[in-house]
Amino acid sequence: MKIPGALERLIRELAHLPGIGRKTAQRLAFSILRGDPARARELAEAIRQVRDQIRFCDQCFGFAEGPLCPVCSDHRRDPGLLCVVEQPGDLYVIERGGVFQGLYHVLMGTISPLDGIGPDQLKIRELLARVERHRPREVIIATNPSIQGEATALHLSRLLAGKADRVSRLARGMPVGGNLEYTDDVTLNQAFAGRQDFGAV
Amino acid sequence: MKIPGALERLIRELAHLPGIGRKTAQRLAFSILRGDPARARELAEAIRQVRDQIRFCDQCFGFAEGPLCPVCSDHRRDPGLLCVVEQPGDLYVIERGGVFQGLYHVLMGTISPLDGIGPDQLKIRELLARVERHRPREVIIATNPSIQGEATALHLSRLLAGKADRVSRLARGMPVGGNLEYTDDVTLNQAFAGRQDFGAV
Repeated sequence: MKIPGALERLIRELAHLPGIGRKTAQRLAFSILRGDPARARELAEAIRQVRDQIRFCDQCFGFAEGPLCPVCSDHRRDPGLLCVVEQPGDLYVIERGGVFQGLYHVLMGTISPLDGIGPDQLKIRELLARVERHRPREVIIATNPSIQGEATALHLSRLLAGKADRVSRLARGMPVGGNLEYTDDVTLNQAFAGRQDFGAV
Repeated sequence: MKIPGALERLIRELAHLPGIGRKTAQRLAFSILRGDPARARELAEAIRQVRDQIRFCDQCFGFAEGPLCPVCSDHRRDPGLLCVVEQPGDLYVIERGGVFQGLYHVLMGTISPLDGIGPDQLKIRELLARVERHRPREVIIATNPSIQGEATALHLSRLLAGKADRVSRLARGMPVGGNLEYTDDVTLNQAFAGRQDFGAV
């Protein structure tokens, strides 16, 4: 039996979202259909508005409502610390931690030759210009510990060498609350290589 | 740091969908923001249109674009077989199987006293009227094998007794491709109780 056209169309649109397969898309579509009509209108409206009202920050390329994002326009943040992340969303993850008080720079991806993404497709030129202009004390590279993330971090560390007093990256090791038994070999090796003296951290 | 208003609103709307928590909602919202703007417009449009164009079938309460759904308006379907399901979406699951050639009746939920849903909130009166009027040979109750689904099936089987030649429900047992070791006790007990002779099915 054919699923009615408008419903099929919604299912297909939802299935374009990351991590949403056909079955989940169906479940979501059915729930949008069965639920409160006002809720569905709100959702449609929120999707349209987010594209109209949210832009990328002129300085760090995080999400912003004006020319600058809330972090870049906050004068209490330390401009001497610059944290480089892959995606605008990564910024909120670090902000949730509440430890980092510097500024960010969003790369908008990672170097990934197989996907045709080279350094020129990322905000690397803008990062270098920013570092040259503002001379931060430290650039912390917080790309993901994936192959692409590591390759990008290595590339950046070479470009930035000598342009900031310190170029660092986030520590690799056992996640807090983790379990030796379930830790993969690479992480375990890095946890050994980066082992810390008691009282050091 | 505060997430910009329009983005926060979209995250909250997405988190209202079933099975979508705050973290998944963030991931989806970021992807809507980062992705093709045309794609976001299409999604918003599809959500609005689905509510405008899809209604419930006058006869079975499945999803329909006109007064009757594609199954109810298909004269090749056998009106002597009536399959009762909980939700409009369940109909597509059974149709995908391709075995059932009769008509459906959607209850629009299950009896669930804790949620304040009694028989009167479901399409049970409509089911009884339909059975009285059309006298199907068999009513197959295909509610979920959950506590509420079973309670609803039992309630229906009592109401329908004597009104159709046969009132049946779907077989319970081991899922095909399943594994004895991972089968729960209740399913295993039902698979024993409903064991079938070789060659019978």
